[in-house]
Amino acid sequence: MAKKLWGGRFSKKTDPLVEEFTKSIQYDYKLMNFDIIGSLAHIKILCKAGYLSSMESSKLENALDSLFKKIKKGFKPPVNNEDIHTYIQNELQKKVGDLALKLHTARSRNDQVVFATKLYCYAATGTLQKTANSLVSAIKGLSLKKENKDLILPGFTHLQHAQPVYLRDYLGAYISMLKRDISRLEFLSTNLNITLGAGALAGTPIMSSKYNENLKSYIMEEDLKGLIKPVTNSLDSVSDRDFVIEIIGVLSIVAMHLSRLAEDLIIWSTKEFDFVEIDEAFCTGSSLMPQKKNPDVLELIRGYAGRLYGNLISALTMMKGLPLTYNRDMQLDKEPLFNSFEIVSSELKVLAGLIKTLKFNKSKIEEYLEDEGLYATDLVYYLVDKKIPFKEAHTIIGKLVRYSIDNDIQIKELPEGLLKKFSDKFVKKEIVKLFDPLISVKSKKSIKR
Amino acid sequence: MAKKLWGGRFSKKTDPLVEEFTKSIQYDYKLMNFDIIGSLAHIKILCKAGYLSSMESSKLENALDSLFKKIKKGFKPPVNNEDIHTYIQNELQKKVGDLALKLHTARSRNDQVVFATKLYCYAATGTLQKTANSLVSAIKGLSLKKENKDLILPGFTHLQHAQPVYLRDYLGAYISMLKRDISRLEFLSTNLNITLGAGALAGTPIMSSKYNENLKSYIMEEDLKGLIKPVTNSLDSVSDRDFVIEIIGVLSIVAMHLSRLAEDLIIWSTKEFDFVEIDEAFCTGSSLMPQKKNPDVLELIRGYAGRLYGNLISALTMMKGLPLTYNRDMQLDKEPLFNSFEIVSSELKVLAGLIKTLKFNKSKIEEYLEDEGLYATDLVYYLVDKKIPFKEAHTIIGKLVRYSIDNDIQIKELPEGLLKKFSDKFVKKEIVKLFDPLISVKSKKSIKR
Amino acid sequence: MAKKLWGGRFSKKTDPLVEEFTKSIQYDYKLMNFDIIGSLAHIKILCKAGYLSSMESSKLENALDSLFKKIKKGFKPPVNNEDIHTYIQNELQKKVGDLALKLHTARSRNDQVVFATKLYCYAATGTLQKTANSLVSAIKGLSLKKENKDLILPGFTHLQHAQPVYLRDYLGAYISMLKRDISRLEFLSTNLNITLGAGALAGTPIMSSKYNENLKSYIMEEDLKGLIKPVTNSLDSVSDRDFVIEIIGVLSIVAMHLSRLAEDLIIWSTKEFDFVEIDEAFCTGSSLMPQKKNPDVLELIRGYAGRLYGNLISALTMMKGLPLTYNRDMQLDKEPLFNSFEIVSSELKVLAGLIKTLKFNKSKIEEYLEDEGLYATDLVYYLVDKKIPFKEAHTIIGKLVRYSIDNDIQIKELPEGLLKKFSDKFVKKEIVKLFDPLISVKSKKSIKR
Amino acid sequence: MAKKLWGGRFSKKTDPLVEEFTKSIQYDYKLMNFDIIGSLAHIKILCKAGYLSSMESSKLENALDSLFKKIKKGFKPPVNNEDIHTYIQNELQKKVGDLALKLHTARSRNDQVVFATKLYCYAATGTLQKTANSLVSAIKGLSLKKENKDLILPGFTHLQHAQPVYLRDYLGAYISMLKRDISRLEFLSTNLNITLGAGALAGTPIMSSKYNENLKSYIMEEDLKGLIKPVTNSLDSVSDRDFVIEIIGVLSIVAMHLSRLAEDLIIWSTKEFDFVEIDEAFCTGSSLMPQKKNPDVLELIRGYAGRLYGNLISALTMMKGLPLTYNRDMQLDKEPLFNSFEIVSSELKVLAGLIKTLKFNKSKIEEYLEDEGLYATDLVYYLVDKKIPFKEAHTIIGKLVRYSIDNDIQIKELPEGLLKKFSDKFVKKEIVKLFDPLISVKSKKSIKR
Repeated sequence: MAKKLWGGRFSKKTDPLVEEFTKSIQYDYKLMNFDIIGSLAHIKILCKAGYLSSMESSKLENALDSLFKKIKKGFKPPVNNEDIHTYIQNELQKKVGDLALKLHTARSRNDQVVFATKLYCYAATGTLQKTANSLVSAIKGLSLKKENKDLILPGFTHLQHAQPVYLRDYLGAYISMLKRDISRLEFLSTNLNITLGAGALAGTPIMSSKYNENLKSYIMEEDLKGLIKPVTNSLDSVSDRDFVIEIIGVLSIVAMHLSRLAEDLIIWSTKEFDFVEIDEAFCTGSSLMPQKKNPDVLELIRGYAGRLYGNLISALTMMKGLPLTYNRDMQLDKEPLFNSFEIVSSELKVLAGLIKTLKFNKSKIEEYLEDEGLYATDLVYYLVDKKIPFKEAHTIIGKLVRYSIDNDIQIKELPEGLLKKFSDKFVKKEIVKLFDPLISVKSKKSIKR
Repeated sequence: MAKKLWGGRFSKKTDPLVEEFTKSIQYDYKLMNFDIIGSLAHIKILCKAGYLSSMESSKLENALDSLFKKIKKGFKPPVNNEDIHTYIQNELQKKVGDLALKLHTARSRNDQVVFATKLYCYAATGTLQKTANSLVSAIKGLSLKKENKDLILPGFTHLQHAQPVYLRDYLGAYISMLKRDISRLEFLSTNLNITLGAGALAGTPIMSSKYNENLKSYIMEEDLKGLIKPVTNSLDSVSDRDFVIEIIGVLSIVAMHLSRLAEDLIIWSTKEFDFVEIDEAFCTGSSLMPQKKNPDVLELIRGYAGRLYGNLISALTMMKGLPLTYNRDMQLDKEPLFNSFEIVSSELKVLAGLIKTLKFNKSKIEEYLEDEGLYATDLVYYLVDKKIPFKEAHTIIGKLVRYSIDNDIQIKELPEGLLKKFSDKFVKKEIVKLFDPLISVKSKKSIKR
Repeated sequence: MAKKLWGGRFSKKTDPLVEEFTKSIQYDYKLMNFDIIGSLAHIKILCKAGYLSSMESSKLENALDSLFKKIKKGFKPPVNNEDIHTYIQNELQKKVGDLALKLHTARSRNDQVVFATKLYCYAATGTLQKTANSLVSAIKGLSLKKENKDLILPGFTHLQHAQPVYLRDYLGAYISMLKRDISRLEFLSTNLNITLGAGALAGTPIMSSKYNENLKSYIMEEDLKGLIKPVTNSLDSVSDRDFVIEIIGVLSIVAMHLSRLAEDLIIWSTKEFDFVEIDEAFCTGSSLMPQKKNPDVLELIRGYAGRLYGNLISALTMMKGLPLTYNRDMQLDKEPLFNSFEIVSSELKVLAGLIKTLKFNKSKIEEYLEDEGLYATDLVYYLVDKKIPFKEAHTIIGKLVRYSIDNDIQIKELPEGLLKKFSDKFVKKEIVKLFDPLISVKSKKSIKR
Repeated sequence: MAKKLWGGRFSKKTDPLVEEFTKSIQYDYKLMNFDIIGSLAHIKILCKAGYLSSMESSKLENALDSLFKKIKKGFKPPVNNEDIHTYIQNELQKKVGDLALKLHTARSRNDQVVFATKLYCYAATGTLQKTANSLVSAIKGLSLKKENKDLILPGFTHLQHAQPVYLRDYLGAYISMLKRDISRLEFLSTNLNITLGAGALAGTPIMSSKYNENLKSYIMEEDLKGLIKPVTNSLDSVSDRDFVIEIIGVLSIVAMHLSRLAEDLIIWSTKEFDFVEIDEAFCTGSSLMPQKKNPDVLELIRGYAGRLYGNLISALTMMKGLPLTYNRDMQLDKEPLFNSFEIVSSELKVLAGLIKTLKFNKSKIEEYLEDEGLYATDLVYYLVDKKIPFKEAHTIIGKLVRYSIDNDIQIKELPEGLLKKFSDKFVKKEIVKLFDPLISVKSKKSIKR
């Protein structure tokens, strides 16, 4: 194991089981560039406060900059360090010698960890909003395709035929969900409250301000101006992980939404429904059954919802009943957090690809649109317009449907005389026009489009 | 079982097991006043569209108004109806006869349920923000008490002595958490998107607008102007419950925060810590051990975090992989939702009461402030100010602490000569001043207060 | 609030908010008869140890017996007591005066609660095994019906046609699951370790043994002989709730299994699949759409899985990180426990009813059995039997399927010459026989029936 | 990407996003040796049925054997294969050429996956039982140490002093928990029902039996005789993952138990309690505060409970509402399963190490044993033995405690005259003897040791 950031007080070596059990570098290396940004900001503070000369600052900055460039090229640090913060410190020492020992002045890993994690979240939520918007575009694109834009299909409640609806409205429902999710991510990212200066829990002796000047030039493509602030309550800062929970919570909602889209497409692409065909490039086969073309991508998306929920519970439970301030338990927030971002990001990307390939089976859908039940509600409105109270009209049509089933005859085939037995308001030539999907969907005026 | 809102099509009676299994009135009665508001808005729509005359509208409004007044007096409807919507419909029919049958024109329970649930959430989040603010005030009050406002205590990380901190900062951390939670509730409530017009899933034939005029005069104390909007995607509206999940998610975070406050107080009120005393009025005893005074309230608050997390999982899992649009599974969102609000609301209230009674044990706390370890970091800064690089200073003090433990002697008792063996920068008369809690907390400049 | 079991040490009254927040009688009244059994056993112990005379014992037993009879008639105690144990104590005092004060000798609510909860679990798991067996019988009955027993349907993987299978095997899969669940319940109930003698945590001064003699005669229909044992580790006994978690865990698995059966039936009863019809008595309708016949019972069963999972998390999280021994948090085990039993019990019952009514649509199923893909694996085996290595045969049939799709022609319609281009082993008159569901299912020899 | 086990039917290449999203080799490589055992058993079946000659069998067996040896040496397969089954198949083909193509005769990955996962569980639960037993031994060892075996400490309920108890009973409580957990693991492993012959879902044409002969000689150290059985319901076999859930459920209970032990030790090792000292080799320090010695190992154990619960929810939710039979979602059972075993196994090991180093601080504990409240219950029994009804005695002692607190005087310091005002049964010289931990613990006769 490499050198640690602590140990002077200890007279014994750490047990190897403990080193293995407590180390986090195998996952927190993902914070490497964010920790470097924190160090760059910290250098400015130390410099201003006179703890580092300009030359020392430059040396440290250059060393960090070269480390940052390694990451950009995909470098993954070795796992024989306790954590990423220790690794960076040890690398710095290799590069600039004992000058590196000054960098830890007036800061603590407790503060570094929460800083880097928040900055990671800031970057990751930003990226994810873009990825989610790409899926929105893909869905929009699908619904605007010439062959789809006026397509009507049976709308379902309880997975039973309900009323005809536009495909574009079906898809539009998912767009609405995703847009809400994006606005949730936006709220989150503007409330992360990224700070420096908490120390281990009690603050530090050095006033900290203006962290953000010129940080851009070093590394982040985005201007960080104003993003990083001095801490206001240092105990709260090092000890809370509500932002992690909040984010995994929102990602869980995204995953839930995607699991529903997946389920709809899985059902619609069965032999029995046959509403839609998924492109082979997005399906897989079977090692035993050569005919199989399975929607595995969609099934995994459905199943991954569980993984997200599990990550949420993992973070929530870990925080339950923890006394203030920092406790080592909190180290366990990172794997669920990273994993949640990675899964949802992959899901959004692979779905955007899959969505673009979907082909709707118009002839099969039209077959199912012949189900007279889909227009029963329109028949009720027909009677309501003839001044029959709604619930009475509902009962009349219910009985008519019953009659049609029991006698295995279509309503539009019934003679007018028979219709009038159900209600004398029925006029056959008016009614037969109602069994039309376009008339049905166009009659719905309550929606503000 | 009372009359249902459906059934014309059915030739058989519902199995009694099914009626029992599917009914929801035993909990959804809590939506009663919100459903009535929806009906009042719907009456305006029907009236404007010519489906109801002004006189009919008035009759229905009056009947609903009298029902509303019953609730205000604490009325709880009998459980022999399928759900609260059915109950209200049946009551209306008793009051205004067949005119009641017209009210269901162009609407569906799918829309009613989501409308009433959202309005419930709007009202409940509003109230909860106030309740949370009361706890904030109680905590602030406690920290501003004359005997508390300058109280310093050992700050903890890993439940081990870390550095001295102000009690007001400890308590301030909880205030920060609660304020974030309140801002989360606020974001939620302004994004509920309360709409009418979705019908069962496909919209209705009646244009809907201006729902909000004059609704205030009927029932809500608050002006609802502009709150209720026409639906924009009807399939999304009836089929999503992301707002329920989002709310239980935020309430889970509140419960997590409160569980931590509870844990701190439980530990602080042990015989061993004895930092704080909880008033007898907020404790309970034992049936066997007569000496006992237990912090049961705090333990329940700690434990209830689990209940909230469970409610969250319940709602999340229920929604996983549901095909669009409405499915009956969604009925199961209400118990977790109501239960979560009720628990968190009780917790906030009982805690506000308990907090006010807390008495800190200054003499015992001062005893623990004598632990020299609390000032070790200040010793490091002392050396850093004398130009020793931080990590080197850290190691020196670590060794000094070690020496002090091994030889069972206080650092401030060490002769200067011995101190200088650890670092020649040490000046004994400077150092002994550092073991002072007030000097320690005042030296922390990094916090923006 | 009624008299408490504690309080001598307290000089203040409990705050009403606290009484409301901490009381449990609104749900723990369900333990009433089990607490009475515990008291009856405790009377025997006290009598044997000389703390009660025979006459006193009889008086107390009679008083408890009359309380027990009230419950049998459905009595629900008023909620103005702290908990059910306090209620029983207060009722006893009304009946036998100060003699009641002796009953609490050498016991504690900590012990009473865990005793009564375990006995509840013992009784409830016993009953649930029977209920689950009734569902097994119902499924078996369905599969043995004359019209079903030889019914073959398309088997699904990934919700895509895989290979033909017997309906009885499909249903048999659910029977296998339920039988495993029943064996889990059995394991649980024999490992509950129901004890007395733990006191609050440290044991009591009275030796306890032979609790079980003659308890049967009082109340339980079942002989309790040997069920109740003296405690072996009293700290463990009052402080663990692993049995609660274990039970909710098993019930969650049951709920998961039932959610899958529900999903299969929901999908199979869509208009598009139309494999099965659910009886009207087990369906519900719509308030807007008169044609609807919805499988609400099945949807609720699907959704309730989430409730069970939530209850499990609730109990698990509550127990996380609790110091020994008893903490008040543990009171929160009961609602999730009771709720889980009640839900699963209802599900099993309503499903047993629903299952009996199912009618399979043979003609529609046969239509789907014509899908040639279902026999592709049999074609592979055909080639394997002609000495073509399996994976090679798999590829050949894969290409054949591809050709058949691309040219929109059935494999059995292909001329022999063309078939031979895929493999010269093909003999058309042999192959055409393979597209037969009965031949397909009968060819599977690997299953030990 | 390497060659797949399917694809003949596909005319397009799989999208790279899909390959990345669906592949599982990065974790299911852990099943490699178990999949090889399955293949060895399958070879015997194919050989017996005449699909493989003895020579072919031997060739395949040797090739598998050499692969198995590679794993033993720690080989980890490259991640450019879809899954471990595909990797093994491709490796075989490299070794034995087209003969490898015959091995997949009459089997499916659906069956392979569940077989290998169950065998993994069988091996892992076996190992874990041993690891748990080592912790039991370590705890037993600690409690039998000369300096510990008669140590008495304050027993806690509600984290408040309750009654004196033996340390060995405190530790014994954890032994009881672990023993129950071990018996749960044992039940599980004997009920795994490891089978072959399910095919994809419908069985295969080859009769399968006697899988177990001679498998031992190849690889498992343990005799597998009788472990592997022919499948009885093939649809159930490929489609259920209840065993995975059941196992993670039991592991969650273990993690819960360990989180409690961790919490007790964290609290006991605070400066304020100071009951116990954890060896430095099992603690870590701080990068800022040089004095720190933190119980990080215990904190991680406490926090990991959340991870286990999350894994449980992940698996449970993934299975919710899945139609029969196999769905790709099920692939997501493996990461939570493996992760749960690995965490709990590490926890048990590191705890066993830590436990052995614990040193109890007898003098500090004795100080706290002077708290008179600990003996209040013994005072009650004293009065009960003098024929005062229990609850009356409880009230008397409660008042006595109150008096003692209010007047800040110890009960044993009170003059007899004053004592008699509380009860004339009090005899001072008898009472003063009761404030003795040894007398207190020895008076508890109810525990069957």
